[in-house]
Amino acid sequence: MYSKYFPILEWSKSYTYKDFADDSLAAIIVTIMLIPQSLAYAMLAGLPPEMGLYASIIPLILYAIFGTSKTLAVGPVAVIALMTSASCSQFANPGSTDYAILAIILAVMSGMMLIIMGLLKLGFIANFLSHPVISGFITASGLIIAASQLNHIFGIEGRGSNLFDILLNLAQNFTDLNFHTLVIGTVALIILFWCKKKLKKFMLDKGSSPLVSDIVSRTGPVIAVVLTTLAVWLFGLGINEVAIVGRIPDGLPSLGIPYFSFSIWVELLAPALLISLVGYVETVSVAQTLASKRRQRIDPNQELIALGFSNLGSGTSGGFPVTGGFARSVVNFDAGAKTPAAGAFTAIGIAFATLFLTPFLFYLPKATLAATIIVAVLSLVDFKSVLRIFSYSKSDGVAMLCTILSTLLMGVEIGIISGVVISLLMYLYRTSRPHIARVGQVPGTQHFRNVNRHLVITSEKVISLRIDESLYFPNARFLEDSVYAYIGREPEIKDMILVFSAINYLDASALESLEAINRRLADAEVNLHFSEVKGPVMDQLQRTHLLAELSGQVFLSQYDAFKTLEPELSKKSLTPNKSQAS
Amino acid sequence: MYSKYFPILEWSKSYTYKDFADDSLAAIIVTIMLIPQSLAYAMLAGLPPEMGLYASIIPLILYAIFGTSKTLAVGPVAVIALMTSASCSQFANPGSTDYAILAIILAVMSGMMLIIMGLLKLGFIANFLSHPVISGFITASGLIIAASQLNHIFGIEGRGSNLFDILLNLAQNFTDLNFHTLVIGTVALIILFWCKKKLKKFMLDKGSSPLVSDIVSRTGPVIAVVLTTLAVWLFGLGINEVAIVGRIPDGLPSLGIPYFSFSIWVELLAPALLISLVGYVETVSVAQTLASKRRQRIDPNQELIALGFSNLGSGTSGGFPVTGGFARSVVNFDAGAKTPAAGAFTAIGIAFATLFLTPFLFYLPKATLAATIIVAVLSLVDFKSVLRIFSYSKSDGVAMLCTILSTLLMGVEIGIISGVVISLLMYLYRTSRPHIARVGQVPGTQHFRNVNRHLVITSEKVISLRIDESLYFPNARFLEDSVYAYIGREPEIKDMILVFSAINYLDASALESLEAINRRLADAEVNLHFSEVKGPVMDQLQRTHLLAELSGQVFLSQYDAFKTLEPELSKKSLTPNKSQAS
Repeated sequence: MYSKYFPILEWSKSYTYKDFADDSLAAIIVTIMLIPQSLAYAMLAGLPPEMGLYASIIPLILYAIFGTSKTLAVGPVAVIALMTSASCSQFANPGSTDYAILAIILAVMSGMMLIIMGLLKLGFIANFLSHPVISGFITASGLIIAASQLNHIFGIEGRGSNLFDILLNLAQNFTDLNFHTLVIGTVALIILFWCKKKLKKFMLDKGSSPLVSDIVSRTGPVIAVVLTTLAVWLFGLGINEVAIVGRIPDGLPSLGIPYFSFSIWVELLAPALLISLVGYVETVSVAQTLASKRRQRIDPNQELIALGFSNLGSGTSGGFPVTGGFARSVVNFDAGAKTPAAGAFTAIGIAFATLFLTPFLFYLPKATLAATIIVAVLSLVDFKSVLRIFSYSKSDGVAMLCTILSTLLMGVEIGIISGVVISLLMYLYRTSRPHIARVGQVPGTQHFRNVNRHLVITSEKVISLRIDESLYFPNARFLEDSVYAYIGREPEIKDMILVFSAINYLDASALESLEAINRRLADAEVNLHFSEVKGPVMDQLQRTHLLAELSGQVFLSQYDAFKTLEPELSKKSLTPNKSQAS
Repeated sequence: MYSKYFPILEWSKSYTYKDFADDSLAAIIVTIMLIPQSLAYAMLAGLPPEMGLYASIIPLILYAIFGTSKTLAVGPVAVIALMTSASCSQFANPGSTDYAILAIILAVMSGMMLIIMGLLKLGFIANFLSHPVISGFITASGLIIAASQLNHIFGIEGRGSNLFDILLNLAQNFTDLNFHTLVIGTVALIILFWCKKKLKKFMLDKGSSPLVSDIVSRTGPVIAVVLTTLAVWLFGLGINEVAIVGRIPDGLPSLGIPYFSFSIWVELLAPALLISLVGYVETVSVAQTLASKRRQRIDPNQELIALGFSNLGSGTSGGFPVTGGFARSVVNFDAGAKTPAAGAFTAIGIAFATLFLTPFLFYLPKATLAATIIVAVLSLVDFKSVLRIFSYSKSDGVAMLCTILSTLLMGVEIGIISGVVISLLMYLYRTSRPHIARVGQVPGTQHFRNVNRHLVITSEKVISLRIDESLYFPNARFLEDSVYAYIGREPEIKDMILVFSAINYLDASALESLEAINRRLADAEVNLHFSEVKGPVMDQLQRTHLLAELSGQVFLSQYDAFKTLEPELSKKSLTPNKSQAS
């Protein structure tokens, strides 16, 4: 009973020392990886570095209690940090106290929304973010994030909510270029790219095990942080030459409810909903990918609750919106985490770092953090999938391209909303002009297919039309026009059979159209018949007068209909003989 | 060639003296009916009375040239007048010159939009206004219009853009009640209701022919206008006691292009589009109803062009937006109009009235015009159809009710937009949770139906699921969950056949879900098969790797699939014997 909402009650029962050892090792590795990431994503969100650490403590513990994925690692991630920054900077200046409070409120609101959606089982709402839209959105976000960090590499000003603004801003301030900063940033970028692309192969060549090579190659950010921090300290580049992180408060976060202004909460409703949905989609897709590798299952609705409590915990402990991160979850998985306890142990590691390590981060250059962000997000940019999706379906490709362009040019909120709206409008447009196939009997069977694609038996007097769409208001008149066109072209038609096999629903407008078709065909002395009407649609029709007024009959199967109306042709057709086919 | 865009070239060829006589008689009757209506709808739109007359001259001549309906009568109508007033009063005060210019610009813009839509064959856009939404919108508009005219009956102030505002305003000013005005308004209402409800029966009882009785019973507005105007003149109630129409300029309208301010045109884009669409839907439905009574056809795309020129003509000759009116078209039809020439003759009649009759309208009380509006629009209010539509389909009923309530409470623009949005959202929600039927073979046939509704043959090892919806992003995950649920419940399943007969389209998200299902079922040692995949969907699948990776096969028909996978069961089933059915 309780274990449905508290999965920890289930897995903790069979927790072993072996699990403890595995989880602890994974936690140490993830902690080391998470410290620079937390600081970097806080900077990306325009927030003080300690908020990144706070967002990596309480949320991880709450996810361990409520989460159904064994290996998901939650915390600050790049895309959500960007969305947080885009939302908050509409109402306050990055770096100000008001701005930090807005980020905290966003986390609390997003947490409450996710919990409510989880309790009401509204996870299906996230399905409206289609795969092409999400994937286009993430590609565009990666580009915006990378561009937004170039100012830290060059040591100049250069902010903006879309790619155009950022690049323009950078170009205008380019003369302020800071040479020391650029050197540090470039070195950090080289270290990071080398660790990412070459270190693994290098270690494998030296005889390391694949697992160790893989994990060590992911410690690039730590190496870059240590080396560049030491450099700044040793060469005394201090605050004036190079922008550094500076003093980070070294206590643990205090718990509290953020200050309440009703109008601000209303303004943040839409951004909080978008952050919730994008964060949830990312969480579920990472969790599902990893779970299926070990034949485990996750519960999408419980994941809403778990992610909701993680965000609520983040907001009430001074953090900002969090979600399941792909890179860190993969590290956790590869490092051998067995249960969500690994996440709780990671939280202890981050808490330890917050208490004792922050003085060592004083001289950490912001350019290094920017470099870790750039290297991390460039792997999000995936232009190949635009081509792949275009080659499968033009409308999916168009939706993806529109999402990318509108995100790049108009920012994240308008970007994702226009992606969803465009993909829905294209679907509606498609359904407004349904495919209507004239069908005939496949010789030797009771099966009916499109006359244009198959060698089938047809009749001059009996026309069978299969309507490949549910009938509702946008396409009701289109059906009328199509039917009348057939009747107009072929005066020898005496019976028209509408094959309902692909009609899943009829609304009131479609019913009126069918009534009009029935009357009009009766005037033209053509009988209207229906075949293969499904249960739910038949239930609908039985509540109307149409069946009583129908000039023809309703047949269980299209074969019944054709056999009844064209007994001769249909009988012959049971002997497979292609010469009979028209 | 030309006659496609100029239907007049077609019908004028065979125009006879008999047609001329019929059209002329109809034109005289419609002219008499149209004079009070034109003045009344101009007042409803907040415009000077002459604009109603102007809107009934040039538009009628242009419709006669471009229209494909033989009997449609265009001109100012109640709902469009209300929408015009709602749009213009956002930017100017009713009665001001600016306000009149806005109405003129609206007519020009709406005319241009309609012509463009006609040339690009975009008439299908109007289909997105579903029947329940339009019918709810008209009912609500009727109530708002009736309420908005009560101030003229009581002789007090009482304006507003929604029902609530209007009633509140009336209540606040109720103490200013003007007794003379109330008497005139009440007398006019009584005359009008009596003519409408009783006069026809009275005349039939006296031995008049049905046609004459019908037409005379529609002259109520003329009788009311003549009697109350005479009363005001005779009793000398002048301007101070009772609000009267006053001096109407007695010349013909001058032609001209309205003054241009780019920002105003941008602001009016959305209202002009709504007016165009609602006007077009009304025109086409009236024209189609009348055409089918005489076995005539109309061309919906040419109607866009005809209505577009009518509006362009109205705007450039000092009128406001017009459309095909139901009541006047029925009168035109019943009075025996044979060709669109009847409309042109009506225009001549109205031009004559504008030149010579306006002095006689000086003492016409506004209360009488308000009474004609109230009696005319109450016939638009149709609550019965809410019940009828609810009983057919709950979601259509909900869409209709939402349209009515949002129109009443938030005005016409928000009302109609929210109706369209709600009906689309409900459709999308429906498609996001598709009906999935487990099917079995109907004994003695090759036909497969839902196991819960029919006595069919099923197998324990081979499960056949018919998915009753196109697969796209909102429902892709729902399909996955449903399929896994079956496999989880019935471990003896070895083959799963997905019946594609109702799947009309697969998007990229659905393709990913099918790939995931294929992999997951392979892990569970269940083969995945597809049957009855339609041509367009097969074309899509052939562009992917899925068919190559599919653990099972693709079958032409569900019978082929079942026969191949369960040869024994399927063979037995060809002998109809209900005891074999499970």
